[in-house]
Order: sequence, then C-alpha cells, then structure tokens
Amino acid sequence: MIKAGIIGATGYAGSELVRILTNHPKTEIAVITSQSYKGQNYGSVYENFRHTEKICEEENIEEMSKVCDVIFLALPHGVASKKVTEKILNNTKIIDLGADFRLRDSDIYEKWYKTSHEAKEILPETVYGLCEINRDKIKNKRIIANPGCYTTCSILSLYPLVKEKLIDINSIIIDAKSGVTGAGRGISLGTHFDEVNESVKAYKIASHRHTPEIEEQLSIAAGEKIVLSFTPHLIPMNRGILATCYASLNSSYSYGDIKSAYEKYYKNEYFVRLTKEGVFPETKWVKGSNFCDIGFTVDSRTNRVIVTGAIDNLFKGAAGQAVQNMNILFDIDEKTGIEQPPVFPI
Amino acid sequence: MIKAGIIGATGYAGSELVRILTNHPKTEIAVITSQSYKGQNYGSVYENFRHTEKICEEENIEEMSKVCDVIFLALPHGVASKKVTEKILNNTKIIDLGADFRLRDSDIYEKWYKTSHEAKEILPETVYGLCEINRDKIKNKRIIANPGCYTTCSILSLYPLVKEKLIDINSIIIDAKSGVTGAGRGISLGTHFDEVNESVKAYKIASHRHTPEIEEQLSIAAGEKIVLSFTPHLIPMNRGILATCYASLNSSYSYGDIKSAYEKYYKNEYFVRLTKEGVFPETKWVKGSNFCDIGFTVDSRTNRVIVTGAIDNLFKGAAGQAVQNMNILFDIDEKTGIEQPPVFPI
Amino acid sequence: MIKAGIIGATGYAGSELVRILTNHPKTEIAVITSQSYKGQNYGSVYENFRHTEKICEEENIEEMSKVCDVIFLALPHGVASKKVTEKILNNTKIIDLGADFRLRDSDIYEKWYKTSHEAKEILPETVYGLCEINRDKIKNKRIIANPGCYTTCSILSLYPLVKEKLIDINSIIIDAKSGVTGAGRGISLGTHFDEVNESVKAYKIASHRHTPEIEEQLSIAAGEKIVLSFTPHLIPMNRGILATCYASLNSSYSYGDIKSAYEKYYKNEYFVRLTKEGVFPETKWVKGSNFCDIGFTVDSRTNRVIVTGAIDNLFKGAAGQAVQNMNILFDIDEKTGIEQPPVFPI
Amino acid sequence: MIKAGIIGATGYAGSELVRILTNHPKTEIAVITSQSYKGQNYGSVYENFRHTEKICEEENIEEMSKVCDVIFLALPHGVASKKVTEKILNNTKIIDLGADFRLRDSDIYEKWYKTSHEAKEILPETVYGLCEINRDKIKNKRIIANPGCYTTCSILSLYPLVKEKLIDINSIIIDAKSGVTGAGRGISLGTHFDEVNESVKAYKIASHRHTPEIEEQLSIAAGEKIVLSFTPHLIPMNRGILATCYASLNSSYSYGDIKSAYEKYYKNEYFVRLTKEGVFPETKWVKGSNFCDIGFTVDSRTNRVIVTGAIDNLFKGAAGQAVQNMNILFDIDEKTGIEQPPVFPI
Repeated sequence: MIKAGIIGATGYAGSELVRILTNHPKTEIAVITSQSYKGQNYGSVYENFRHTEKICEEENIEEMSKVCDVIFLALPHGVASKKVTEKILNNTKIIDLGADFRLRDSDIYEKWYKTSHEAKEILPETVYGLCEINRDKIKNKRIIANPGCYTTCSILSLYPLVKEKLIDINSIIIDAKSGVTGAGRGISLGTHFDEVNESVKAYKIASHRHTPEIEEQLSIAAGEKIVLSFTPHLIPMNRGILATCYASLNSSYSYGDIKSAYEKYYKNEYFVRLTKEGVFPETKWVKGSNFCDIGFTVDSRTNRVIVTGAIDNLFKGAAGQAVQNMNILFDIDEKTGIEQPPVFPI
Repeated sequence: MIKAGIIGATGYAGSELVRILTNHPKTEIAVITSQSYKGQNYGSVYENFRHTEKICEEENIEEMSKVCDVIFLALPHGVASKKVTEKILNNTKIIDLGADFRLRDSDIYEKWYKTSHEAKEILPETVYGLCEINRDKIKNKRIIANPGCYTTCSILSLYPLVKEKLIDINSIIIDAKSGVTGAGRGISLGTHFDEVNESVKAYKIASHRHTPEIEEQLSIAAGEKIVLSFTPHLIPMNRGILATCYASLNSSYSYGDIKSAYEKYYKNEYFVRLTKEGVFPETKWVKGSNFCDIGFTVDSRTNRVIVTGAIDNLFKGAAGQAVQNMNILFDIDEKTGIEQPPVFPI
Repeated sequence: MIKAGIIGATGYAGSELVRILTNHPKTEIAVITSQSYKGQNYGSVYENFRHTEKICEEENIEEMSKVCDVIFLALPHGVASKKVTEKILNNTKIIDLGADFRLRDSDIYEKWYKTSHEAKEILPETVYGLCEINRDKIKNKRIIANPGCYTTCSILSLYPLVKEKLIDINSIIIDAKSGVTGAGRGISLGTHFDEVNESVKAYKIASHRHTPEIEEQLSIAAGEKIVLSFTPHLIPMNRGILATCYASLNSSYSYGDIKSAYEKYYKNEYFVRLTKEGVFPETKWVKGSNFCDIGFTVDSRTNRVIVTGAIDNLFKGAAGQAVQNMNILFDIDEKTGIEQPPVFPI
Repeated sequence: MIKAGIIGATGYAGSELVRILTNHPKTEIAVITSQSYKGQNYGSVYENFRHTEKICEEENIEEMSKVCDVIFLALPHGVASKKVTEKILNNTKIIDLGADFRLRDSDIYEKWYKTSHEAKEILPETVYGLCEINRDKIKNKRIIANPGCYTTCSILSLYPLVKEKLIDINSIIIDAKSGVTGAGRGISLGTHFDEVNESVKAYKIASHRHTPEIEEQLSIAAGEKIVLSFTPHLIPMNRGILATCYASLNSSYSYGDIKSAYEKYYKNEYFVRLTKEGVFPETKWVKGSNFCDIGFTVDSRTNRVIVTGAIDNLFKGAAGQAVQNMNILFDIDEKTGIEQPPVFPI
C-alpha cells in the first residue's frame, strides 16, 4: 500500500483527494493536516465522512516525509515553495496541487503572482503533471506540479491543434466557464449564495493567473512563443469547467482533418473522450470523474475552429489528476481508483 | 461474477443502477433494456457512459432470466407485476424498484394506484427490501420489492420510535422534501427548468402513493394500525430527500432515552449514521452514497420529538439499496460496491 | 411626498426597501445610512442601482428624525431598541423591520434573544404590523413592529383557523422552507454557495426565534395560550418562504367549512390570495410581490387540515409589508407602490 | 390609454409583456390570445396573475386590429409573417417579437431559418427596433421587428467599436451565455430540470440563427460586410444574458480611447449603463429591468478589446424592449413603465 499524506486536507481540493484516496485500492491515507481545523475530527469538518475517524493534524512536513511515500500539497500559492526542500524530496514524493511549481520561468511566476519564488533551485527538476502530455517525464520525478483546473481543460482542448500547427497561434481565445468550487471553501461576498446564484459574470479579464500557465505549455508544444486571451466566468453551479476555444485555421481544413489530429494524440487516452460530430461536451457528463470531453466544429464561414472541452474541476482539474500522477509515479495502472464513470444526474 | 440484467435502464433509477453495477467488483452487467431507446448505444443516451459500448436491447424477460442471475426492474407501476411469473422466478432473482410488490395488501395497492394488481399470487412470497429492517427475511427470497425513496427515508427515521413504543402513533406527521430526480426523466411542464428552479411547493398533499407504504411498514413495527400524514415537497436541486418527522412522545423522554432507541437498532448498521446532538442531517452529506443520516431533537415545550432523516433518493432510495439487496441475496458483503463516502461538494 | 429615511440600507431587506420606495409614487428617499459602507455610493454596493447617485450616510437618527416623515430600521436585533426614544417618536414615525418591538412580552424576548430589552417603556405603544390582521390598530401609531418573514407567512396561514376555533390549538406544527436571502448578506460558511446549493436542511429545530412571535399572535387570536412546533428549513434558492402547517380539526369539517373561514377574513384582502381546491401555493407565484398565497387540504383519513402559505420573504416578509404599513400610517391607498403582480419566471 | 393586444401571451416573452403592460400607466391590455390555452383564465396558466380575471382568447388578428392601437406578436418564427397584411397595418401598429421581420435580406432569412419568407412585400417598411440605435427610424413606422435577445446584447456591446472603426471587423468573436428562459416554455429533454441544472454547454456552435441578425446590423454600422463567430451557451439560471465579445484593435488604443467611443453613443442613453474601469457586468445587476450594462478591458498583451454586455433576456431582450418600441411609436416618454431599477437579489 502506498502511504499518502495530505497537507491542506480541508479545502475543497484536499477533501476531494481524501475522498478519492479513500476509494483507492492501493493507497492508505497516513496523515492529513489542516491549519484551520487542527485537532478536529475530519468527519465534523466534512460530514460526508461522518462515519470515519480521522484527525486533522498539525502540519509537520518533515515528520510526514518519514512515514509517507507521497505527500500531496493543497495549499495557497506561495506556501508550498517554502515547504519543499531537498531533504524532504529525498524522503518522499511530492505532488503539489498549487501553482508554485507549475511555471518553468520564475520571472513569469513572480510577475503574475506578485510574490517572490522561494524554491527556484527545485524548479528545474519539477515536471508539469499534465498526464496525457507529459506521462513519460513524470515517471521518475520526485516532485510533480499538478496543473490548474482551467489550464488542464484548456491545454488538452488545444494541444493537438497547436502541436500539429493547424491553427494561427496568434489567434487563440479561450472563453472558460467554471462552477463555484473553483473559488475554494474560503468565504467572501463573491461566493455568498445569493450573490452567485442565478447570475453569470466574467472576472479577472486578461489577468487571470492561469493564463501564463496555458501559454507556457502551449508554447512548448508549438515550439514558439504563444500569447493568448483567456477569460474565466463564474457559473451558478458547484462543479465543472467548460472551455470554449477559438482559433483561426492555417488552411481550409475539414472536420476530418482536425479529427485526425485529435485522434493522433488521444485515441488511446482513456481519460480523453472525443465527442461525435455535432455533439458538444457538457460539464454534467464528466462530473465526479477524471474524464476530459472534447468536441469541435469547423466553421467554414470564418475559417475558425471552435473547440469545447469539459472537465470536473475538482477531479481531473485537481485531485483526480493528482492521483493519476501518483499512479504514474508508483508505476501502477494509471486508472487505479479514478476510472469510475461520471455521476449523472447529480 | 453475478450476472445482472436491468429492465428499464434509461430512466434515472435505471441509469444509477448501471453506474453502480459498473463499479461493483462482483457483478457483470449482462443485459440492459430500454423501451424508448432500444437499439441505441447506452453512451449516446447517457453520455457519462460515452466511453463504453453497451446496447439498449428490446426487453425479453424470459430470455434474460436464462442468462441473468438477477434482474432489476426499473419500470412504471403496473408494469412489473405483469412481467414476473413463476417460471421466471425459477430461473432468476428479481429485484423490483417499482411499487407493484411493495404493499402486502393488494386492496390498498388497488385503491391508491387506481389499477388492478396483476400478480397477487406472487405477493405472499415477496419481501419488502428495507435492508436494515428486513435483512434476515431477504436472504433466501426469489423476489424483493425495493422500497420507495420517500419511504426508505421516512421508515428508517421513525422505526425505532415506533418499535419501542416511544411515540403516540396517531400523532405522526412526515414533511418530506425531494430533489427533482425523484420525478424521473419523463418531461413535463412540472419539471421544466424554469418552472422548478428557484421555487418550492408541496404536492399530492394527503394523497401521495408512498403514504400507504410507510403506514404498512410502520404498522408492522408497531403491531397496530398506523395512519399518518405525509406531505412531499419539490426542492430545486437534483438529488436528495430530507424527511422531517414529528410525533408526540408517550412520556417525557430525554434526548438520551431516544438516543438509546436509535442506537439499539442502528448502532451496527454501516449505512445508518446518527448525527450528534444539535447536528441535523443535510442532503449534501449523503449525496452519491448509500447512507441514511438521522438526527433528532426532543422538544420539551411541546413534548414532541422531531426527527430528520436524509438520503440520496437515487442511491439509498433506489439503485443503491437495490444493490444492497442483491448483495444480501447473493450472500456477499452487504457493502460491496456501495460503501463509498458521499461526494461533496457536487 | 412622504420623506423616508432608511437605517441599514445595505442589508438585503434594506436594499429591497430602497428599491420599492424608488418605485413608490408618493415617497421620496431622503436619507439612507449604512454602517459598513458609509460614504460610498449606493450604486457601487448594489450595482442594480448603478445608474443612480445616492450616498450611504453615517447614521444619526436624531438628525434624520427632523427631516424624515418616517424612518425604517433594518438592523440586527438588540440595536433598534437602543435607538428609538420618545424624542425621536415625537418627530417621526418609526417602522422597525427587526425583532425588538415585535413581542409584547419582554420576558419572552429576553429569553429567546438572550439579551436584555432596552426600550421596555416604548413596547406598550407599539403595534404588531401584520396589516391584514391589525390594520385598524396601525393607523395612528408612532411606531410599528414589522413582522418577521416566517411569522408573516405562518400567522396568515393559520389565523382564520385559530380565530374561528376550528383546530386543536395544541396540535399545530409549522414546517417552513425559506430561500437563502432570509439569512441576510452577512457572509458565513453556512451561506457559502457550494455549501447551500443542491442541498436542503432543517436548522434551529424547536429553537428558532420566530416561534414565540407566531405563538404570541396566534394566542391573541385564540384568546388562549398556544404552544406550537416550528421548524425552519433552508432551500437552495434566493427568495421565497413556504409554510406547511398541520393541525387536527376540532370536528369533521369539510373543505367548504374551512374555506368559509378563510373567506371570512381574506375575501377582501388584496394581498391574500386563496388558491382553488386542489391547487397549492408555490413560492414562484409570489416572487417580487406583496402577495401571500394560501391553500389547504382537509385530510379525512387523519382528520387534519394541511395549509400551505407562500410569500416572498424580502417583500411581503419584510420591505413590502413595511411599505404597506407606511401606506396605512399615512392614510394613502394601502396598495400604493406594492401592487405589482409577481415576476415569473425569474 | 393605448389599447394593446398580445398574440401568444402564454409563452415566456408573452407573459413578460402581460406583466410589464399591467404595470404600464398609459396602456390597457385589450386582448390576449393563446393557441394552447384558449378559453382559459390567464391566472390559471400563469398563477402569478391568480388575482386577475383575463381570458385567453382565440386569435383573430383582423378583429383585434380594429380594437387595438398596437398588437404585439410573440410567436414562433414563420408564423408572424403569415399573419401581417397591409389591411392590418392600416388599422394598427405591429410589434413583432419574433424573427420574421428582423433580417432585411430575405435570402439570408430563408437560408438560416430553412423556410420561405411569406411577407417579403412588407419587409422594406419594417425597422429593426433596437431603440438606442434606430430610435429615429422607429417613430413613424407601422411595423417594428423587435430584436432577438442575444442580438440586442451583442449589438449594443459592439456597436460603438464597429461604428468608430476601432476594431478589425474580421476578428469579432461573441461568446454568449444565456439563462434557460431563452428556450421558452415548450417542454423538451433539453430543458428538463435535471438535465440543465448544475451543467453548462455550448450549443448550435457556428449555426445559431441570431448570427446573421448580428452580422447584418453590425455590417450596416460598419458600412461593410461583417462575418463573425457567435457561440451561445446554456447556463443553469432562469434569466439573463452575458455576451463576452473579443476583437482585435486597429491600433494600440488606450482604455480612455475606447471609453470615449462608448460615451459618444451611450452617454445619454438611460438604458445603457457603462461600468467603471475594472468592473464587469453581471446578469444579476440587470434582472427584471430594461438595462444593458457594458464594460470592457483593453488587453495590451494581445492588442484585443474584451467587451462584456449583460441584459435580462425577457426584458430588454424581448418584452421590455418591445414596450420601449411602443413608447417611441406612440411618442410618450421612452422609459414609461420600464424604468424600474433591477431586482436584486431575486
């Protein structure tokens, strides 16, 4: 059994990790920690775990690294980079669900996150844990940067088009819609029920921190620098992300041409499901699962391709992909514990 | 592996069965049928199953009974009773999710359902499959009547009080609240999004068909005839039932007195979770699970006990309990395939 | 024009008052105050008022009383009673949307609100402003206690039955369901979107502070002391209250008997709408209006009457009724500014 | 008093018209018709009108034209064009809320609507009733084509940029989000509560019928042909449209440059509210009103402008704008009956 520790287990991503690992046949949760609820029974913080006994401990990553085979970090940005050290990495694997190790370029990190990066020496050995793209690079790493929710959905949706040079890389626009769990469990007027319910808004237009992450990964795929527009929206629902992506085609490609590109990269990917022509992804079809559904339309009137991708932001967009990364790291079947079909209607 | 057939697999209860059995380690889905979608790929009807290949067949229960160890019926009332015959019961086990075999008294069935009962000869051998109450009677049966959603929640909430004669059986009032999946997938103005969303209503006041089912089972527990008030309400959410139950206490019992009664019956029941004093069940804490959460308050001002019970109507209130019944029938661990913690937030 | 002041204009009830009074043809808003947002433009706090210029002032009730014909107080309990003095009442009319002046019996207030009452000398001259019941008493008062939301709905639903002695007053149970605006605009985990959405729960069982208010008013109607059960529930929607009320009939009354009682009191009440037999109130049909819809069923099986009442908690349950009280106080048509039909679908 | 008739009063747009006109001080509803509910009391179809007496009549437009000063048509496309004749136009004004008279080019109509246009002779005299843009052309017309919901929001959001030639007209992308009332009251699996709730999807990608309407109007503004991308999305809420619009700037314009363009056209428009820099429209701030809120961001990284516009689809996007058109036609204050502030929270 893999012994897992979770630091920050009482946020939404952390709680989804607890849930997924509870169902995982080859993992045992050794330690969970919480700053806000230390000493409390996890089942009193998340009463879906009412039937269990599990105490939220005070975090001590060094001690945890001695008993855990892997430690998941579900922390605000700027915190993880201060905790991970060479010593810890010698003891255990780290899968960080936060932003600190996602960007290769620490200057870009510091510019978008408006804070200094505290672990630049570790950056070179981290890998961006988007499993379908970087599986081979993940295998032997000590530390994985688990991708963001919007980024997972956006990159998977656009990767084949960029990689195969089918689109004008200066024309990319991503209009993304997220459920409210993406904002976490911290209370604010912006997540107060009556302020969110029955309304839709764009936010952080042209300034959301997932933008450089998407750009960096797609630039790597393209082999040249990509700058794009990314606009997140808040949708009155709990879970789910839909990314609607627009790009101008480099030539008058047919539906079949584009389809071939997607199949080239995803045909054998269990967790990526291409929809049939004329069928578009809906977040309800991926809820509670690790799947990413992708569909696209070729619009000959504008010579654009419009791609829509859907994921569950807490599952494939956070905890599920973290477990997928763990499975790869420990060389067990990548689907272990996360292959369940989506839950509908829920 | 248990070979399972599902008749009526494209309703919400049927689809939840497909999902649960897909995750069940000791079952294999042999046949699924659908009247509305016969010949179609299940993954095009329920696109959460987009990654699978499973054809909705035309129903032929006799042929199915030859290849299936168990057949689940998820059909409108009045249909199941016409399909189940002695011959079929000799071949396979039947778990009926509909109403036809739930009431022992066929007169009451005919009165409330306004139709004649077509399988009165089979009624005597059926058992009411409320697992926590009737576990022992289920084991060797050929046919199980899986309880209704409101009834499961209501009976589990009141059973110990009735059984232990702590309450005035003429004073029982059940005010129940259900998510909209309880109404099924059939379209109607009453389930049109904008007609349901952002509103709450009572419906079928003093005339809902789950009333005689609750009365019959509680009467058995009491050893005398119980007549009660049951009022269902529609809540703008997908899943979940909360039953708020009121009854006058037969004496001035304390919280501890009542607690003892609940513990007597449920202390060792995995799927029944009693909440702590002052904590009340919420449907979110049981969503996507087979749990029934129960809490209660003793109100000394009115000498009443107020009990609230919460279940997931499609899981413990339908498909999950059906699988629990299957597990009992086939003598495997009752929790197999249905012991996952609830999913939150979703 | 009536000059109105609003103290506490940035809570939900206060903002609904601002909105209703903006549309009121015989009122002018003279002053609005807010503790949290003083000095700010109201249109930046409530952006539905983006097109207006209105500054949130610091509260000075004495100064306000010199320029306002009426002052509305939309404040937390315990605050209003410290502000209202004889001097102020000599200058202006007070309509208090809070709880401080609702209960005649200050001992009961102190017991349920767990604080001392600071204006006991004013209590005797206040009137409980449930317009349909106390209209005549309101006319010449200086201070009106505007009823609570749950209480308005519950009392209107039960009043004719109690007044006409049709029911056993020891058998009353009120099971109420409210949208989340009832909890106000203050943030908390309990009103965080993902914690409320897609779930239902009972709360403050047998201990909600609207209980003594309902009891006191119904006791006055009955001419004897009534103790009852009141259970509030939180529903995942913004607005609306549905009260489902149960009581045992004193005799085997028919539907027509009960109907006569309701018609006796409400036939000429514009804002009370009795539904037809077999039709039950739904909160969507009263949203954005001052109406209270009432329907009932006589259940001969249990000899109970089940009454459901529906209101918009922020309108008839707070700001709308406050304006109705103002209209009565200033002797203008009671419907002025609040007679619009409900808004549906919204 | 203006005597108004409404044909198709029992759809959502029709019912919103009934509601707005009921509150309108200079209008009297003379006749309402409904195909589905003829002979029934309107208050039994829309129970928010429970307190009124109004019968849904069988439609006879010729008779209506003799008694009505204006007739509103709220009908499926292809129906209105068969009803409007020269004779009728000689008797009364027509405001058509449907699509039949919106497109000047009947070839485009026939191509996108896949039906032949039955009133080509009337097309030349119709005017596209987007009040803020075409006010002067509306005044003396006999027939007004009331704009679509998506189109109202999209055109108002982009008009100043196109008119002032600030953007590359080949770069326009509109990503729109709508509440479910946009789909009307007709039942379907696609609007079944549990299928819509808690999910988001794009639909009719590159093929929605509002596309040519937006293109035609913006082409007129630009003085050259515009082809653009329009993608509608369904959001789990009742009302509201948010249009997120992207376009490349023709030069490196500043925020102030763009702002000047918007102010040039909208400074004196009561119903268009420009948000402050850094503040983005949200549909909740316009619900229940005729306002269109518009905000924008200049993204220097991509040299794009991102504009978001928000309206209430049933009000400014349908019935409210229809009444605005009526007010213009009858030369009364354009805001009469529709100037109320938005309702929040609701």
